[in-house]
Amino acid sequence: MNIVETYKKDFLDYLNTSITIKEPKNLYKPIHYILQIGGKRLRPILTLMTCDILNGNVKNAYDAALAVEVFHNFTLIHDDIMDSAPIRRGKETVHIKWDVNTGILSGDAMMILAYQCFENYEPYIYKKLLKLFNKTALEVCEGQQLDVDFEIRNDVTIAEYIKMITYKTSVLVAAAMKMGAIIAEVSDEESEKIYDFGLNLGIAFQLQDDYLDTFGDVVTFGKQIGGDILENKKTFLYLKAIETCNEKDKNCLLDFYKAKTSNENKVSEITTLFKKNSIDKLTVNEIERYTNKAFEVLDTLQISNEKKEILRNFGSSLMKRTL
Amino acid sequence: MNIVETYKKDFLDYLNTSITIKEPKNLYKPIHYILQIGGKRLRPILTLMTCDILNGNVKNAYDAALAVEVFHNFTLIHDDIMDSAPIRRGKETVHIKWDVNTGILSGDAMMILAYQCFENYEPYIYKKLLKLFNKTALEVCEGQQLDVDFEIRNDVTIAEYIKMITYKTSVLVAAAMKMGAIIAEVSDEESEKIYDFGLNLGIAFQLQDDYLDTFGDVVTFGKQIGGDILENKKTFLYLKAIETCNEKDKNCLLDFYKAKTSNENKVSEITTLFKKNSIDKLTVNEIERYTNKAFEVLDTLQISNEKKEILRNFGSSLMKRTL
Repeated sequence: MNIVETYKKDFLDYLNTSITIKEPKNLYKPIHYILQIGGKRLRPILTLMTCDILNGNVKNAYDAALAVEVFHNFTLIHDDIMDSAPIRRGKETVHIKWDVNTGILSGDAMMILAYQCFENYEPYIYKKLLKLFNKTALEVCEGQQLDVDFEIRNDVTIAEYIKMITYKTSVLVAAAMKMGAIIAEVSDEESEKIYDFGLNLGIAFQLQDDYLDTFGDVVTFGKQIGGDILENKKTFLYLKAIETCNEKDKNCLLDFYKAKTSNENKVSEITTLFKKNSIDKLTVNEIERYTNKAFEVLDTLQISNEKKEILRNFGSSLMKRTL
Repeated sequence: MNIVETYKKDFLDYLNTSITIKEPKNLYKPIHYILQIGGKRLRPILTLMTCDILNGNVKNAYDAALAVEVFHNFTLIHDDIMDSAPIRRGKETVHIKWDVNTGILSGDAMMILAYQCFENYEPYIYKKLLKLFNKTALEVCEGQQLDVDFEIRNDVTIAEYIKMITYKTSVLVAAAMKMGAIIAEVSDEESEKIYDFGLNLGIAFQLQDDYLDTFGDVVTFGKQIGGDILENKKTFLYLKAIETCNEKDKNCLLDFYKAKTSNENKVSEITTLFKKNSIDKLTVNEIERYTNKAFEVLDTLQISNEKKEILRNFGSSLMKRTL
């Protein structure tokens, strides 16, 4: 078992003993369910790994790792309600398996449970962790709101889009790592670098998600290709095309995205349009730019090369989607 | 202006400077709206009053008072969605004025904002306040779940009902007061007494709410009389009647509550049945029992009689609905 698998197994053991079904059962069963139906557990693994690499006591990082995972799963429950999503990780979403009210209330309780996970930390560390958690949690909500706002806006800039994905997903990855650093009690400067590493890697990952949805293959990506195009999602690819195409291609793209129903050739025609305008290459450049930013920060950390290598390997596996 | 009005005015000034509409506006506008459409502000007043009476610096209590009020209003947004309630404080509820998704997300953000309100406290006090807040917030969710569960159960006991109303409403009143005590840095024993005072007064108030809904007058109560009966709500009155009536009256009551539509005489017939079985008197006894419990705890506090009198007067005004 490699180190990442070990962290994951240990975390899942901790999760299983910590999250049990209490009374009232109708409140706690959905919480138990969403936390048990899988997921890569990336964020808690990152909290444990960061604490470990920075010479902290990993045992002390489990509670923060759990808080991050519980919070992340709370956002999934509420996001799935807002998106009317029927399936999550191949299983029924909470509001389908139960109902919307149950999803709202169990989600609320999960957010509080996430806060409660921190209660074993000493006051000074506790407050540091909580301030980061508050800031991050609020940014996640703001990111979700921006995502909703962007659906009906036609003037979203790339900078705004990067801000949205940063808030919606990257800040929690970054915070998960920074919590590991706070628990390892490294300097503020060092933990800020860890945060930047996580943030840039998170943005790169999210942009790659946009890329793979159109240019990936179903085996590596694990989802049907072209989903974003069929749903008229204003991804990085779309926004980059709108920004760089000539008038004719731009109008063609706008017409495709105005139509509520999709004609059969939509995915292939837009993919061709993207390729013709080098959107694939421009996106790969941007992914590399953020990945390199992450790895450059990594180089400046005050830890052994061996330890940097662990974080670098984790980052590379994440970007190769082999985790 | 009496002392309660002064606390309220000062609190509202603080609220107005603290809760502003930031970006993204679609997230923060509903938060600003629900916090501005009124309400008695009982909980924050109690935080300020308790801190003041226990010789704490009231200035230090504003942030905790704000946290409690923001949290309370978050629960209103989500509860109104769950109850499909169109009106709150005479105005449109958030999910009607905007939509359900906005209500869910703005509510989530409000809960985090409530947590953020505490960030100016020193780590030791901060952690004490947060532990109480976590416990209370989770109980409020559990109380809401019990309320939902009870709607379809036919075997709810009075003890279970008291637990439900305690969790759903009284614990937040009690915690609001205890926060004032924690900020005033009194002993744990003393702040526990304050909590008990708030808890028992909260239960008394809630039972009185049940009583007034059937036996009150529209002027004092501020709502239409008989609403609970028309909605088949299993209040203390109903549960007490089921527990104490003879078989014939019990069956009559059960039949009335089975019917989905209400016949015109339902309110008067059930009110007569309650009176015949002395449910009004039994309920008044129970209200008095909890009120007296609250006032007995008050007597044991280590403060001057003059200060006890302030809390006693507040409690009495609350029970006389003159606040």
